[in-house]
Amino acid sequence: MLDFTYYAPTKVYFGKGMEKKVGEIIKEYGYQKIMLQYGGGSIKKTGLYDRVMTSLTENGIAVVEMGGVEPNPRLSFVKKAIQKAKEEQVEMILAVGGGSVLDSSKYTASGAKYDGDVWDFPLRKATPKDALPVGCILTIAAAGSEMSSSAVISHQDMKRGYNSDFNRCQFAICNPELTYTVSPYQTACGIVDIMAHTMERYFSVCPPTDLTDRLAESILKSVIQAGRTLIDNPEDYEARATAMWASSLSHNDLTGCGRQNVLAVHQLEHALSGEYPQIAHGAGLAVLFPAWARYVYSYQPERFAQFARQVWDVKEEDDQQAALCGIEKMEEFFTQIAMPLKLREFEIPKECTARLADLCTFGKQRTIGTYIDLDYRDVKNIFDSCY
Amino acid sequence: MLDFTYYAPTKVYFGKGMEKKVGEIIKEYGYQKIMLQYGGGSIKKTGLYDRVMTSLTENGIAVVEMGGVEPNPRLSFVKKAIQKAKEEQVEMILAVGGGSVLDSSKYTASGAKYDGDVWDFPLRKATPKDALPVGCILTIAAAGSEMSSSAVISHQDMKRGYNSDFNRCQFAICNPELTYTVSPYQTACGIVDIMAHTMERYFSVCPPTDLTDRLAESILKSVIQAGRTLIDNPEDYEARATAMWASSLSHNDLTGCGRQNVLAVHQLEHALSGEYPQIAHGAGLAVLFPAWARYVYSYQPERFAQFARQVWDVKEEDDQQAALCGIEKMEEFFTQIAMPLKLREFEIPKECTARLADLCTFGKQRTIGTYIDLDYRDVKNIFDSCY
Repeated sequence: MLDFTYYAPTKVYFGKGMEKKVGEIIKEYGYQKIMLQYGGGSIKKTGLYDRVMTSLTENGIAVVEMGGVEPNPRLSFVKKAIQKAKEEQVEMILAVGGGSVLDSSKYTASGAKYDGDVWDFPLRKATPKDALPVGCILTIAAAGSEMSSSAVISHQDMKRGYNSDFNRCQFAICNPELTYTVSPYQTACGIVDIMAHTMERYFSVCPPTDLTDRLAESILKSVIQAGRTLIDNPEDYEARATAMWASSLSHNDLTGCGRQNVLAVHQLEHALSGEYPQIAHGAGLAVLFPAWARYVYSYQPERFAQFARQVWDVKEEDDQQAALCGIEKMEEFFTQIAMPLKLREFEIPKECTARLADLCTFGKQRTIGTYIDLDYRDVKNIFDSCY
Repeated sequence: MLDFTYYAPTKVYFGKGMEKKVGEIIKEYGYQKIMLQYGGGSIKKTGLYDRVMTSLTENGIAVVEMGGVEPNPRLSFVKKAIQKAKEEQVEMILAVGGGSVLDSSKYTASGAKYDGDVWDFPLRKATPKDALPVGCILTIAAAGSEMSSSAVISHQDMKRGYNSDFNRCQFAICNPELTYTVSPYQTACGIVDIMAHTMERYFSVCPPTDLTDRLAESILKSVIQAGRTLIDNPEDYEARATAMWASSLSHNDLTGCGRQNVLAVHQLEHALSGEYPQIAHGAGLAVLFPAWARYVYSYQPERFAQFARQVWDVKEEDDQQAALCGIEKMEEFFTQIAMPLKLREFEIPKECTARLADLCTFGKQRTIGTYIDLDYRDVKNIFDSCY
C-alpha cells in the first residue's frame, strides 16, 4: 500500500425528494445570495427547476441564474459566469445537473476568487488559493464530480482538467429518482464512466492493496448489476440508487487509496471528445477502455486476471487467458447496455487517429500511462485499434 | 436503500513516518497553541512522544500537556482537561493514542465550548453547538474513532456515548508502523472492534442495500485476513495497514449507508466494560457478538446466511444452517486470534448478568436492538448464554 491522503469532505444528502431541502441546507450554511448553474433547460421540463426555486425562495435565498451550460462546457461560458459571480457578489455556486454543470460551476467558483485567467489552473500556471463553495443537486449518475476533486472544461481544441480540494463540493444532494428520466443511452454512458473511474485506479503498478481492491471490485460488481437492471427497468429505485452512490464512491478517491491514480484512459478520451464534442464521455470510454486494456494487459496479466475473476467471475486458470476473458466480458457488457465498441460507430474518419494522438500527447510532448509510458506511437496504435 | 446523510470530512494522512508531519499540518491550519492528550506514557517509551514534540516545536506550536488518559476514560479526567483547555485557551486538541484518548479528547473539545456540564451530551440534555477541532495520531487500529462521530466516556457506573459531527476529527495521522508494538491481545481486540462496527450496521432490518453490503463484506474479509496474518507476523506492514484503514472505514458510516445503525451489541458491551473496566472493549464484543447473533438470527436467517456465504465462504444451501455455520466460523476466528468466547474467562461472577441487564436497559427503562426489541429479559438471556 502506497502512502496516501484521503479527503472527501462533501456532505451527501441521499434519498427521495431530497432536493426539496436545498433552501434549508443552504440557509443552514448561512449563504444569502447564490449563483444557480444548470444546463439546457431539461430541469424546467421535469419540474425540478420549480421545486428548487420554491425551496430557495421559501428560505430567503437570492438567486443569480446562469443557465445554458453545454455538455463539455467551454471556457468562454465559464468566463461569463465568473464575471457575473464577481459583479453580483454571490456567496456560493449551486450546480443543478450532471458532470458538465459541475465542471462549469467548479471553474466558476475558483475563478471568482482569482484575479488572473482561470485557464491558468489546467495549464498549471497557477493553483487555486481560494474558491467559492459549490453545492449540487445531481441529476445523472456518471461523472462522480459531486465528490471528486476534478474539474474539466474545453477551450479551442483542448479539453483540460485540474485537481484541487477547492473542487470538492461542500454538499451534494443526490436523489436517485431524478435520474429516472435519463435516457437509456446516457444511463449507459454513466455506468461506463463510473466503472472507468474505478478501473483506472485499479489498473496501476503498485504494491498490494487488498482492501482497496475488494472495495473497487464491490463497486464494479454492484454498478454492473445496476446497469443490467436499468436496461429493462429504468425506474428501479435500488438500481438507480446503486448507480448514483457508486458514482460518488468511484471518484471520491476511496477506490484509489494506496494506489497510483493515473487515469490514462481518461487522457485518451479527453482528446477524443475534446476534438469531437458530439461524443459522450462515457461512450468514448466504452470504446477506449477495452482497446487500452488489450494494449497493456500483457505487462501485468495477473492483475487483469484478478479483475476477470473477481468482477466477471471468470474461472479460467491461466492468467493470460483469464485476462483476455475479462476484457471480453467487459466488451460484452458494454454491448449489452448498447454502448459502442468501435470509433467507426461515431462516423468520424479513420484518419483522425493521428490528430487524436497528437492532441493526447500535447504534440508528442508527453507520454501517458502506468504499465508502460504510452508515447505518440502507442497512443495512435490504441486509437487505430478502435476502428 | 434507506435515505441517508454521509459526512466524513476527516482528512486522513496515511502512511509510513506520517507522524513527523504533525507540526507542519497543524501549522497549515493556523493553530498556535494546542492541548496534547495521551495515555499512560507508552508513547514516551516508543519515542513517539519525542517525534511529535520535535515536530510541534519546530513549527512553533505551543503545547499544553494532558497525559494520563486511562482506558475507558472517566468524566472526572475530562472535566480537568476541559478546565485546563479553557484556562489555557488552546485552539485545538491533538489526541495521540487510540480510542480512549480520542474519546477523552472529543469530550474535552465539546466541553471547552460549552458552559454547562459536558455529561449533558450523553444524557441528551443538550447537544453540542460548537467544539474545538480535534486531530489525532493513531496508535492502534480498533475503535475507528479517528473518522467516527461518536465519543464514549464513563461516569459512576455508566459508560455513555453520543454522536455529533463535532466529534469528527479534522485530521487523522495514520501510520501503520506505530501499531507494530501493539500486543497480540490488543491487536485481536482491535480486529474484533473493527468487525463489530461493520457487522452492527450489516445486521439490521432494512430494504436491500447491495452496494453497501458488498463494501461491508469486503472490509470484513480484508480485516479477517489481516487478523490471521498478524498472529504470526505482527510487523507485516500490509496487514497492519489493512487493519488501520479498515478501522476508519468501518466506523465512518460508509458501511451503514442506506441502512439502520442500531449498534445493539455495543450497547450490551458498554454495560459489560462499564461495570468491569478491566474488560477490553474488543474482548467483550468477541463474547457478545456471537451470543447476540445466536439469539436473533432466526428472525432473519437469510441475512445471516448471506453473511456466512459472502464473508466466511460457507457453501451450505439451507439458510438456517448456513446462518449457524457463519456464526460458528466467526467464533472459530475469534478463538484463532485468542479472543475469549465466554464471560467466565473474565472471572466475573455468573450472578452479574442481572446487574448487567439492568445497566444495559437503564433499569428496564429501554429496549435495544433491531430484529426484535431486546428487553431486560432478552438482554439477561444473552448475558446468561455467555457463561
